[in-house]
Amino acid sequence: MAAKPSIPKGTRDFSPVEMAKRNYIFDTIRDVYHLYGFQQIETPSMEMLSTLMGKYGDEGDKLLFKIQNSGDYFSGITDEELLSRNAAKLASKFCEKGLRYDLTVPFARYVVMHREDIAFPFKRYQIQPVWRADRPQKGRYREFYQCDADVVGSDSLVNEVELMQIIDTVFSRFGIRVCIKINNRKILSGIVEIIGEADKIVDITVAIDKLDKIGLDNVNAELKEKGIGEEAIAKLQPIILLSGTNAEKLATLKEVLSASEIGLKGVEESEFILRTLQTMNLKNEIELDLTLARGLNYYTGAIFEVKALDVQIGSITGGGRYDNLTGVFGMAGVSGVGISFGADRIFDVLNQLDLYPKEAVNGTEIMFVNFGEKEAAFSMNMLAKVRAAGIRAEIFPDSAKMKKQMGYANAKQIPFVAIVGENEMNEGKAMLKNMESGEQQLVSVEELIAKLQGN
Amino acid sequence: MAAKPSIPKGTRDFSPVEMAKRNYIFDTIRDVYHLYGFQQIETPSMEMLSTLMGKYGDEGDKLLFKIQNSGDYFSGITDEELLSRNAAKLASKFCEKGLRYDLTVPFARYVVMHREDIAFPFKRYQIQPVWRADRPQKGRYREFYQCDADVVGSDSLVNEVELMQIIDTVFSRFGIRVCIKINNRKILSGIVEIIGEADKIVDITVAIDKLDKIGLDNVNAELKEKGIGEEAIAKLQPIILLSGTNAEKLATLKEVLSASEIGLKGVEESEFILRTLQTMNLKNEIELDLTLARGLNYYTGAIFEVKALDVQIGSITGGGRYDNLTGVFGMAGVSGVGISFGADRIFDVLNQLDLYPKEAVNGTEIMFVNFGEKEAAFSMNMLAKVRAAGIRAEIFPDSAKMKKQMGYANAKQIPFVAIVGENEMNEGKAMLKNMESGEQQLVSVEELIAKLQGN
Repeated sequence: MAAKPSIPKGTRDFSPVEMAKRNYIFDTIRDVYHLYGFQQIETPSMEMLSTLMGKYGDEGDKLLFKIQNSGDYFSGITDEELLSRNAAKLASKFCEKGLRYDLTVPFARYVVMHREDIAFPFKRYQIQPVWRADRPQKGRYREFYQCDADVVGSDSLVNEVELMQIIDTVFSRFGIRVCIKINNRKILSGIVEIIGEADKIVDITVAIDKLDKIGLDNVNAELKEKGIGEEAIAKLQPIILLSGTNAEKLATLKEVLSASEIGLKGVEESEFILRTLQTMNLKNEIELDLTLARGLNYYTGAIFEVKALDVQIGSITGGGRYDNLTGVFGMAGVSGVGISFGADRIFDVLNQLDLYPKEAVNGTEIMFVNFGEKEAAFSMNMLAKVRAAGIRAEIFPDSAKMKKQMGYANAKQIPFVAIVGENEMNEGKAMLKNMESGEQQLVSVEELIAKLQGN
Repeated sequence: MAAKPSIPKGTRDFSPVEMAKRNYIFDTIRDVYHLYGFQQIETPSMEMLSTLMGKYGDEGDKLLFKIQNSGDYFSGITDEELLSRNAAKLASKFCEKGLRYDLTVPFARYVVMHREDIAFPFKRYQIQPVWRADRPQKGRYREFYQCDADVVGSDSLVNEVELMQIIDTVFSRFGIRVCIKINNRKILSGIVEIIGEADKIVDITVAIDKLDKIGLDNVNAELKEKGIGEEAIAKLQPIILLSGTNAEKLATLKEVLSASEIGLKGVEESEFILRTLQTMNLKNEIELDLTLARGLNYYTGAIFEVKALDVQIGSITGGGRYDNLTGVFGMAGVSGVGISFGADRIFDVLNQLDLYPKEAVNGTEIMFVNFGEKEAAFSMNMLAKVRAAGIRAEIFPDSAKMKKQMGYANAKQIPFVAIVGENEMNEGKAMLKNMESGEQQLVSVEELIAKLQGN
């Protein structure tokens, strides 16, 4: 007997039910992206390694899946090089292609290659899998989907506002209550500027984040431990204790950062975004949160993150503004702002809160039982009409035992079954059975259609 | 300056317009699959090479994209082996994973691994990319999508009938006129059985296919050349000259194949399929065509192929019945029947015939011009209502020159533009401009929505 097949670790098969749920997530996000004028693109799964390498740090280079060259991949390699067994160095000789690691670098590459055809600002979205040779663990996969939307070629804060509206709309449609957290890299830059500790941003945000848990004294002790001077810690006090409404926080920051041009710019940007959103009646709360420091090496303005309120789970969406997306490919001056929905985590949240709408997950609405060739022929004519009415319908293909056919309908959670035997055929009708209530009713095909359409 | 980026040969970027068209194709196929009770699955892009190797012949093994193992892929390889530079042999040491080559083998692997959770007959569809290290050429890519539907675990010919209905419905929805060709492996087996030339099926079908072009005498000469005896060629005459309606062809075949059990079985199966379809009022013609011999090593019953009538292009859909899908993975007795739509060719046909419906390709329906902060704020409140009504709308994010903003609207083929300046704000309205006719009209947001919804 052949060996039992398996799939590579960190990868997944998606069953019909999982696919229906995933499609519901992607379709919801896609619909909202469209509402805001975003357009979809797709890029190849493989990129040249020259496009990918050096873009994700040394660690990222190691995590790229590399594709072996076709044909004689040894040509051009000396015996000495081979015997050196330098895996990393020889990889770039054996392989010239790698699998997409994220959607950002391929997007940058796309913008550079298609710059002549793009009408800027370019509002693009992309929903595709990415691959990372990470150590697999619970909730971390080697193949997973990203759902990114970015606007490039516009510095306007209207983009930030609209991305927050998109986030609010998407999670409202999902029925997931969230807190949208917003920060600004320029505020953080201003803070370290006024205390003269430019390289301590992360230490400071990490310490502030602990206020609720360990109290002010311990936060200050931690800052001191990290090498931040007493005077600087004193200046940080109003920032550590920052509280109240967003407007109150911004007022405090404006005072504390009065000597920092970049800091004030960050406050002003945040003010614009929050003030504009206030007139938009978002369904979810937006909170200015200085501890938000994700992607700090990358983001240059607003930073976003979304937390689910009713489930313990990490951030389910994130994003921010960045400069110079395409500089690495020789095209300067393209800045942008973007968000990325975490599809796998949203999948988990919707599962835990049982929020999938029935109609999103439902497949076949009615199955015709098959009693034999004559009955099947009769049923198939009814089926054609049922399907022409847009109803998802099937006939059990074999005239198998009733128990098997009903078992199939149950396994597929088909809500209605139509039974067509001799009597029904004589009347030109079908016996419609509601699988939940068990109720049966003799109906014409027109009545059957009306019933299933809820009329 | 950085090097100009490029993408691997044989791969493609898809622009927004191309994506909209591709989504239209996939969504149409998906909708019809759902109407017939098919459920979607997805499998990982990478499979173990042990799953893929040996399933596509030697040529296929060479065309697999192999993924280099992470970490030290040299371990366990001797210096001698390395210096042998045997690329094919060492590939299986350097690599344990490969990219999906088609959707059939991963599906077979899926069925085996999930057999306990599947309610048979399993009607699954799958729309995912596959990768082949083929020499790229016009219309042949190294990454392309397949859209397969299969029913496994049922021998009923009802499945064949429904797959033909699916093909007919899909191409009717596309507006592509097609001829659906059908053949049966068992008929071909019967033919070679009665003439005693079991290994000449392909030669015979190729020769018959030339009848219209080269005439009967030349066909017979070619058959003789291929080593087929005179008596056999005499027996083949009614088959070479087979013509008329499907019923007439079947009647002839029934006579000619009267001595072949398998041949008669093929006739009977084809009769059932064609007779049942006749009561279904298909929009497209179905033709019994004995020259259809695709996938002959694989198919065991019905064979299908679809040709576009109004465009010169190869087959745009194909499929057939096969035995023993999963035997190679140690699970016997799973037979099935399936079809596969050729998305790339359908894309070309729809382009050539200009058949994409406007609403399928259209993106943003209205753009608000941006005259500055105050006007933008006013417009964004209108926008919120427009979007709440389900209308795809955007505002130009920057208050750029009018010419730039209108250029953007034109490039994105946005049919309506809303102009909101001082006067419009004072009236609480917007100037709605039809970009095609140039017509302008001062409207309230409610009137704007009604206009765009076509009321």
